[in-house]
Order: sequence, then structure tokens, then C-alpha cells
Amino acid sequence: MKFKAADIAQLLQGTVKGDANVEVSTLSKIEEGKEGSISFLANPKYENFIYTTQASIVIVSKDFVATDSISSTLIVVEDAYQAFTQLLQHYNTIKNNKVGIEEYSKIDSSAELGKDIYVGSFSYIGANVFIGDNVKIYPNVSIGDNVTIESNTVLHSGVQVYEGCKIGKNCIIHSNVVIGSDGFGFAPTADGSFEKIPQIGNVVIEDNVEVGSGSTIDRATMGSTIIKKGVKLDNQIQVAHNVQIGENTVIASQSGIAGSTKIGRNCMIGGQVGIVGHLTIGDFVQIQAQSGVNADVESKSQLYGSPAIDASSFRKSYVHFRKFPEIVKRIDKLEKENKQK
Amino acid sequence: MKFKAADIAQLLQGTVKGDANVEVSTLSKIEEGKEGSISFLANPKYENFIYTTQASIVIVSKDFVATDSISSTLIVVEDAYQAFTQLLQHYNTIKNNKVGIEEYSKIDSSAELGKDIYVGSFSYIGANVFIGDNVKIYPNVSIGDNVTIESNTVLHSGVQVYEGCKIGKNCIIHSNVVIGSDGFGFAPTADGSFEKIPQIGNVVIEDNVEVGSGSTIDRATMGSTIIKKGVKLDNQIQVAHNVQIGENTVIASQSGIAGSTKIGRNCMIGGQVGIVGHLTIGDFVQIQAQSGVNADVESKSQLYGSPAIDASSFRKSYVHFRKFPEIVKRIDKLEKENKQK
Amino acid sequence: MKFKAADIAQLLQGTVKGDANVEVSTLSKIEEGKEGSISFLANPKYENFIYTTQASIVIVSKDFVATDSISSTLIVVEDAYQAFTQLLQHYNTIKNNKVGIEEYSKIDSSAELGKDIYVGSFSYIGANVFIGDNVKIYPNVSIGDNVTIESNTVLHSGVQVYEGCKIGKNCIIHSNVVIGSDGFGFAPTADGSFEKIPQIGNVVIEDNVEVGSGSTIDRATMGSTIIKKGVKLDNQIQVAHNVQIGENTVIASQSGIAGSTKIGRNCMIGGQVGIVGHLTIGDFVQIQAQSGVNADVESKSQLYGSPAIDASSFRKSYVHFRKFPEIVKRIDKLEKENKQK
Repeated sequence: MKFKAADIAQLLQGTVKGDANVEVSTLSKIEEGKEGSISFLANPKYENFIYTTQASIVIVSKDFVATDSISSTLIVVEDAYQAFTQLLQHYNTIKNNKVGIEEYSKIDSSAELGKDIYVGSFSYIGANVFIGDNVKIYPNVSIGDNVTIESNTVLHSGVQVYEGCKIGKNCIIHSNVVIGSDGFGFAPTADGSFEKIPQIGNVVIEDNVEVGSGSTIDRATMGSTIIKKGVKLDNQIQVAHNVQIGENTVIASQSGIAGSTKIGRNCMIGGQVGIVGHLTIGDFVQIQAQSGVNADVESKSQLYGSPAIDASSFRKSYVHFRKFPEIVKRIDKLEKENKQK
Repeated sequence: MKFKAADIAQLLQGTVKGDANVEVSTLSKIEEGKEGSISFLANPKYENFIYTTQASIVIVSKDFVATDSISSTLIVVEDAYQAFTQLLQHYNTIKNNKVGIEEYSKIDSSAELGKDIYVGSFSYIGANVFIGDNVKIYPNVSIGDNVTIESNTVLHSGVQVYEGCKIGKNCIIHSNVVIGSDGFGFAPTADGSFEKIPQIGNVVIEDNVEVGSGSTIDRATMGSTIIKKGVKLDNQIQVAHNVQIGENTVIASQSGIAGSTKIGRNCMIGGQVGIVGHLTIGDFVQIQAQSGVNADVESKSQLYGSPAIDASSFRKSYVHFRKFPEIVKRIDKLEKENKQK
Repeated sequence: MKFKAADIAQLLQGTVKGDANVEVSTLSKIEEGKEGSISFLANPKYENFIYTTQASIVIVSKDFVATDSISSTLIVVEDAYQAFTQLLQHYNTIKNNKVGIEEYSKIDSSAELGKDIYVGSFSYIGANVFIGDNVKIYPNVSIGDNVTIESNTVLHSGVQVYEGCKIGKNCIIHSNVVIGSDGFGFAPTADGSFEKIPQIGNVVIEDNVEVGSGSTIDRATMGSTIIKKGVKLDNQIQVAHNVQIGENTVIASQSGIAGSTKIGRNCMIGGQVGIVGHLTIGDFVQIQAQSGVNADVESKSQLYGSPAIDASSFRKSYVHFRKFPEIVKRIDKLEKENKQK
């Protein structure tokens, strides 16, 4: 797809300075601009690139004043960064506009389907499933019986949803995510083996949630594992049975939350963090990457370490840990001095 | 599906107290009971909920004596917890009773298929595969050539089994598990690049094993990677080539076992644990979450830390680590005192 | 498939000592040899097994001198280990020689297909995709629009490639790998929720790369996430948006690289390592398993710990950490002595 400078300026409510007929087909960073690409200048640190960039079009804010000659066509807007973001979203909307049911898909006759949905080949929709308007289901997705998927949600290829789970509106579920697999629950028996505890709950994902590729969210033993609205989960995250994650909490890649733990709202959790089961984590908590949380956490706490302690305390202790050989030498010296007395 | 109180009582060998015709279609915790759900009271701590629950039916033990009025129908049994577990299992059996070969599945003509199997759409069964009686293969599963899957095993959607692997009876393999991918083996060459060492072994999973969603189990370089009977693996676990995991060992989510390590029986390994290659871990070993094991471990050991040491020693050292700034101040003070003398 | 000793000897340019007509159908370690298998003796430590092995054929180097009777047929070659590796590669080539487009696959009419390719059932190839000669695409693979896959590359079952990504020659991508999912980029808004930053870049994987099962590689926000030639990634590795990994770098299982970090060439990174975003890691760097890297790293450094420091310093400090209670007792004693003075 190609777009003219004039058309882009209209979309962004900006004005063209230069060739209004120049066309672009891709987006680029200003320092990597090529003919046929559109870029933007928002951070003054990058200003020097605007005089050398090969980008055909550059979006600039209205307060930008050039100090040298510029070969690119400019589109002048209120706020260059916001305008570029708007352009990105427009581009993405055009990209994700697939509609229709492709051949070799299987949809149970009892399923209820909304308008303008896309179901790719090799995707499976079980009995009594509800699919809202504008839902996009890419190829090779399996959706078990009695699942509900609300409007505007996207399931990328390879997503697996077990029966009975619910996914809200405007969610993005990336490839190979598993939703609703059995929680890890076993009762020990007399002979040392383990008997499975049936996991009959489900997973409820509220609106505006994004789940990164390869993440796994287990169904509750009873009741629901709940991901509240606005939560953003990165790739390869593990959410165990009966966990609750509060609104707008963001968790980086490869972190794991053990069973029945409740995390508050607006928390920021780094990558490769582990949180043990049956804990309560407050709101606005920040946890550094690779930390291991094994106790309840009050709101607004900042944690670090494995096991995790107050982040600033951890950093102070670690400074000494790095100098441990030196510290032990000081003790050796003190002992020597005391002996000599 | 709806079930009458009278029918459930018969299944559980209990007696109905209340309306024997009341119907339920789901299970709930007693504190979350709704009309149409069945719950149970086992833990006396929850007794007060039985007087307010909206659950249509509650299972109680025969020694339960009500101290207030109850609106739910009761089913009185020997042991309420066991009865409820029995009910769960019955419910799960009904839920997993799919039978038949769905359209758009591909089964090689040389494959041998047992009775009462289920093969979902978009599932692929290669040449010379053996599928035992009552095996359930959900949609979007790929099974390579020469694979053996014994009776009553369930493969959830998105499971990938490479050629030549063997899975025993009564196993549950959750969505997007990979069994039999190549082990990570490369030989360095003179120019700094790496040459692949072919991985020609397989994976053998014995009976009664459960593997959580997203886990990966690599095939042996030669011989077999072996998961012994009764092993329970949580989600996103990595098992490298030539690993052996002993009977009834349980491993929590996101742990990884490097190549050729042998783990004994009845071990309990926490989440996000790493175990380096070529080690021997004894029986009944317990390893705390996020530990990193880099040496052989004797039976019945308890480990913690990265690198892992005796768990109780780790905890004692960590108490001091948390007070490290204070400890260094004590040394400062001692040095000052010695100088002043 | 069965192979005669005479034929194998010809392939390996060796000579048969024993029954040239004996047939084998599988490969084994010498200590696990069974009738019908072929093994090899390279390491003198294993010599005693050659007198007892049940393997039908054993490959030996020309300088091997038997000190007892051997029942197996021998194939005498220049170098037994190299000959066996050659045999393994031959075996693997035969195993991976599937050719043709299977039924129930979907290939967009605009896709360009090379010679001798294999496309398994339930695999999806989008618009304008380029597939080079001899590419093997196993079942249940999804390839988005505008993807390029160069010659001789293998995509195992369940691989998901998002639109616009590029994969080089001679790559092996294992099951359930995700390539090109959105990077984890969100801008905070005034009400505490997060707005998605569109991710419009792609992933570029150069030649001779192997990616282990379940790994996820996110597309760049703009530009490309780049995996350079000869890189070997183990299972369940996470590579975030705009990361670059240099030539021949090897990363073990369950490690994660956060956004925009650049890793040099010929690095060796252990399992469960985390590297935070926007760092520069030099060439020939070695990082111990479970380390957490949070600062730039110079070439040839060796790191360990979380946060990671110089590996040898970490080990020295950890020796003292293990003896922390004892060290504190020494301080207690010093304080007591000073008080008594």
C-alpha cells in the first residue's frame, strides 16, 4: 500500500511543506530513513538526522525550526510524536482488517458468531461458543466448548483456549498462548504417588488485556483465575490456578505467579520474577527482575532479590556482598590485632 | 448437563435432606454458591457459609450438626471432601468423553488405532503410529511417524510430538507441549561456528504422567530422555536431552533440567529452579523455588539458593545478608576502637 | 529402514571385519547396544563394552586393537567418532526427506514456492510469501503474509511466523516457536491504564540459525529484531523487540533478553539468564546460568550472579556468603573482646 503526503497530512490534520504528491509505503526511524519511508522528529537529540535522512516524508511539530536545508517533504503537526503514533495505529488497523471464514475451518453449528469476524483456516470453534463482532481468529487456533470471546478481540495463530473460559473486549492474545489448562493440583497418596485434583473452574480475562506469546494461564480449581481489565502480560508468563491480577498491572517476560496469589492494580513486575502461592500483593507495587517474592507485600512497596526484600535494602546489601572478600580480610586483621595485644 | 439431587446422592452413596428433585449444572465453593450449583462443607472454618450460601445443594459429612436454618438441599455422606472429589472426577469423565474422528483430520493409513478414541479436526497422525484405546487427541495436534501412545492418554490441543517418541497410559499432556524436539547439541568448529550434533534418540514418557502446558521435552542424543511413571510436570518446564526424572517426582512451573541429569524418585522441585547438566539428584530431594543446582545431591537433601546449598544454611546466611550494612558498621566500629587504642 | 554392514562401510569409506551382510535399523550407545543396532567406540574408557555389547555392528578407529573376542561385526575407519557423526547426518537426511504438498494445507495463490519443498497438512502460507528450495514445513505451521523463508530451512510443527518476517537458509525452527509477535511496548496514560505502541517492525533471522522449541522472538517496534548467522538458541528463550544477537552466539534454555539489547558474537550464555533492555554486550562474553545482567558488558568478560558481576568475584563472595553465620560469630567475639578490655 502506498500513501501520498497530502493524504497523510489530512489524516493527521497537518500541513505539507514540500512535495504533496510524494508517496511512502513504510515507516522508519529518522536515522534509518529510506526513500519511500515516512519518519518523525520528536526528540531534539535526533534533530541532526533530519538534515541527512533519506526518508521521503518527515513529520515535525509546529515549533520545529530548521537550521539547515532538508530534502524530505515535511508534514507539520501539533505534536509529532502523537501524530506518528496515530499513523501507526491507522497502519495497524488496515493491516488487521481480515474478514470472513476461511476454508478448512471448523465451527460448531451451535456457536454464535458476531459481525465482521475473521476465522482462519485450521481454526476450531467448539459447541456453544460466543464470538463477538469484529473478533479476529487467525489460523490454527482451538477454542473449546462454551467459551465466550467479546468484540474486537484478536487471537493470533496457535492460541489454545480450553472450554468454559471467557475473554473480554479489545484483547490481543498472541501466538501459542494457552488459556484454561488444568491447574497443578495433586493430592499425595499413601504409596507416594499423586492423585489429580480435578480443575473445574475457568479463566476470565477482562477487557483491554494483552497476553504475550507462549504465556500460559491455568483454569481455577473452582471459581475463576481472573486477569482484570487493562492488564498487560509479556511473553512466556505463567499464571497458576485461582490467581487474580489487578487492573492495569504490567508483568514482563518469563515471570510466574503461583496458585491463589492475588496481585493488586497498577503493579509493575519485572522479567523472570517468581511469586509463591497464596500471597496478597498490594497496589502500585514494583518488583525488580528475577526477584522471588515469598511473603505478602504492602501497596507501593518496591522489592528486589531472591527472596525479595525492600529494593533499596537489597541494593545496599549487595554492594557489601561484592566486597565480601575484602570485608573478611578486615575481620582477619582485627583478629590478628587482638591476638597481638 | 443438569443433575438431580437424588441422582447425585445415589452416585455418592449418600442421603438427601430437602428437595430431592432440585437440579444443578455446575460446582462452586460454598462461599460463592449460586442457584443451580452444588457445593460442599468439609472444613469447619467455613460452616457459617452454609447458612447463607445460594448453592442449591451442599454435600455435608454425616457428623455435621446444623445450628441454624439452611435453605440448600443437603446430601449427607460419610466424608464430604472425598465425596466432592468423587463428584469432580465423575464430572470430568463426562466432560472428556468425546469419541470419533472429526473431519479435516489426517491419519496415515499405516497407523494403528484403538477403540473409542477421539481425534479432533486439524490433528495429524503420521506413519506407523500406535494409538491405544480411549486415547483423546484434541484439535491441532501433530504426531510424528512411529510414535506410540498408550490407552486412556489425553493430548490437548496444540501438542506436538516428534517422530519415534513413546507416551504411556493414563497420561495428560496439556496444550502446546512439545515432546521430542532436538536436544541442544553442537560441536565447535575452527572458525567459531557450531556444527549440529544429530539428535537421534527419543523421549519415553511412562504411565500416569501429567505435563503442563507449554513444557518442552527434548529427545536424547542417543537412547531416551525418560519421564518415569507418576511424574507431574507443571507448565513451561524444560527437560533437556538424555534427562531422567524418577517416579512420582513433582516439578513446579518454569523449572529447567539441563542435559543428561538424572533426578531420583519422589522429589519435590519448586518453580523456576535450574539444574545444570550431567548431575545425579537423589530420591526425596526438595529444592526451593528459583534455586540453581550445580552439584550432585544426596537423597533427602533440602536445597535453596543460586548456587543452591543446604536450605537451612541458605536461610541463615540470608538473614545476615539482609543486615549486611549493619554488620559492616560493626566492623567499622571495631576498627575505630582498635585504632584509638 | 535397514542397512547392511557392507553398505555402511562403503558410505564411511571403511572396511568390514565380520559378517558384511548383517543388517541394522537403529543407532545406539555401545553400552546400550542391542541386536539390530550400530554403535561406535571412540573413547578408550568405553573399550570394555565392546567385548559385551549386543550391537550388531560397531564402528572402530583403525588403531583399535582388540584384547578379547568380539561378537559384533566391526567397521574399521580412520576416525570412529567422525564416521559415526557422518552416519548420524546421513540418517537424519534420510529421515527429513519429506517432499510434496499434503492435503488440507492452505497456500495463498500469490506465494512463490521453491523446488522439493514439503508442506504438511494444516499448514497455512499467507499472501506474497516466498519459500525457497528444499524448505520443509511440518503440519500445523502458520506463516503470515509477506514472509520470506530461504532454502533448506526446516519449520517443525506448530511454528507461528507473523507477517513480514524473514528467515535465512539452513535454519531449523523447532515446534511451537513464535517469530514476530508484537514487542511489549505500552505508553502510560493519565488514568493509569496503558496504550499500546504499535509494533510495525519485523524479525530477521540469518542463515544457519537453530531456534529451540517454545522460544519466542518479538518483532521490532520499528526496524528489525535481528538474529545473526550461526546463532543457536535453546528451548523457551525470549527475545524482545529490537534485540540483536551476534554471529555464533549460543544461548541456553529459558533465558530472556529484554528490548533493544545488542549482544556480540561468539558469546556463550547459560540457562535462565536475564539481560535487561538497552544494553550492549561485547563479543566472546560468557554468562553463567541464572545470572541477571543489568549493565553493559565488555568483550571477553565472564559474569555470574543476580545482579551479575565478574564471575570469579561472585564465586569468591559466595564462598563467604555460605559461611556468613560463622563470620558474624567472629565479629561477635571481637566485640566481646573489645568490651572486656
